[in-house]
Amino acid sequence: MSTSAPDPYHHGDLRAALLRAAEAMLAAQGPQDLSLRAVARAAGVSHNAPYRHFASREALLAALAAEGFRRLAAALEGAGAGMAALGRAYLGFAEANPALYRLMFGQGPSRAAHPALAAAADAAFAPLAARRPDRAAALRAWALVHGIAQLRADGHWPEPGAALAEAVLREEG
Amino acid sequence: MSTSAPDPYHHGDLRAALLRAAEAMLAAQGPQDLSLRAVARAAGVSHNAPYRHFASREALLAALAAEGFRRLAAALEGAGAGMAALGRAYLGFAEANPALYRLMFGQGPSRAAHPALAAAADAAFAPLAARRPDRAAALRAWALVHGIAQLRADGHWPEPGAALAEAVLREEG
Repeated sequence: MSTSAPDPYHHGDLRAALLRAAEAMLAAQGPQDLSLRAVARAAGVSHNAPYRHFASREALLAALAAEGFRRLAAALEGAGAGMAALGRAYLGFAEANPALYRLMFGQGPSRAAHPALAAAADAAFAPLAARRPDRAAALRAWALVHGIAQLRADGHWPEPGAALAEAVLREEG
Repeated sequence: MSTSAPDPYHHGDLRAALLRAAEAMLAAQGPQDLSLRAVARAAGVSHNAPYRHFASREALLAALAAEGFRRLAAALEGAGAGMAALGRAYLGFAEANPALYRLMFGQGPSRAAHPALAAAADAAFAPLAARRPDRAAALRAWALVHGIAQLRADGHWPEPGAALAEAVLREEG
């Protein structure tokens, strides 16, 4: 039996466990107090363990935001045909993951400083671009669902929110 | 000559001075450290003076957000005919007042708890409702400009932002 505490995770598992712990903290209390040390504590590993995967708190948040964009892309790729179905999938993701959505689209980790995050964000735009090849039309649809998602998350979208969102999205075709 | 420091403001002027000081602090450093005491210091009045007008920090922020909606309404009322002109006026306000805009539309003061804020927010919606009597169409246009404003403020709207916003708004008619 070793006298040093064994690392409870294999290499890849540690990274995933840290991201899971960070996401749970983000959802519970927002990004303010989310430090690498607090995430390590929540994951049950030594306070130096996160540095095996993340150079900084910002790098961890960037990885979490990238993971969010990959999940958003999967949700959009699984949406039915047409723009309204895509919009519903987008709003469903935003509503189910409010803190993560805020991290992805707010003043969070810099995409310029984190190429993997930028690539994941670009990839999540692909299902929309495939349906709306015209760039202005695609950006218009994106701004529309982002606006609805933000207004709903901040409590400014009139009730019944879901029915109104449906009516608004229907016109996108 | 009195030995107590005279109040440098008349009644109505004090309220306006406190709101000006609060807005400057909000723009410079965000809402986190904005306390009634700090606002009093910035306005050069005693730390009890703000209570003559505002019961709490939240009440001050609600008054500031209401002032923001009155200014937004004035900007929208001064816009030219058509939806694109209205959208330009809206985005111009959001871009010129990023911190105030965030206070007005983010998770800020509760409109339910501050009827004057709710009334000012409703009034700012009137120029849009006049052009788009159909409620779903009006909300759609609002969500669109709000989405563009947020994406631009958070650095996620592709450059050239202004030209693209124009192209997107033009389709609103």
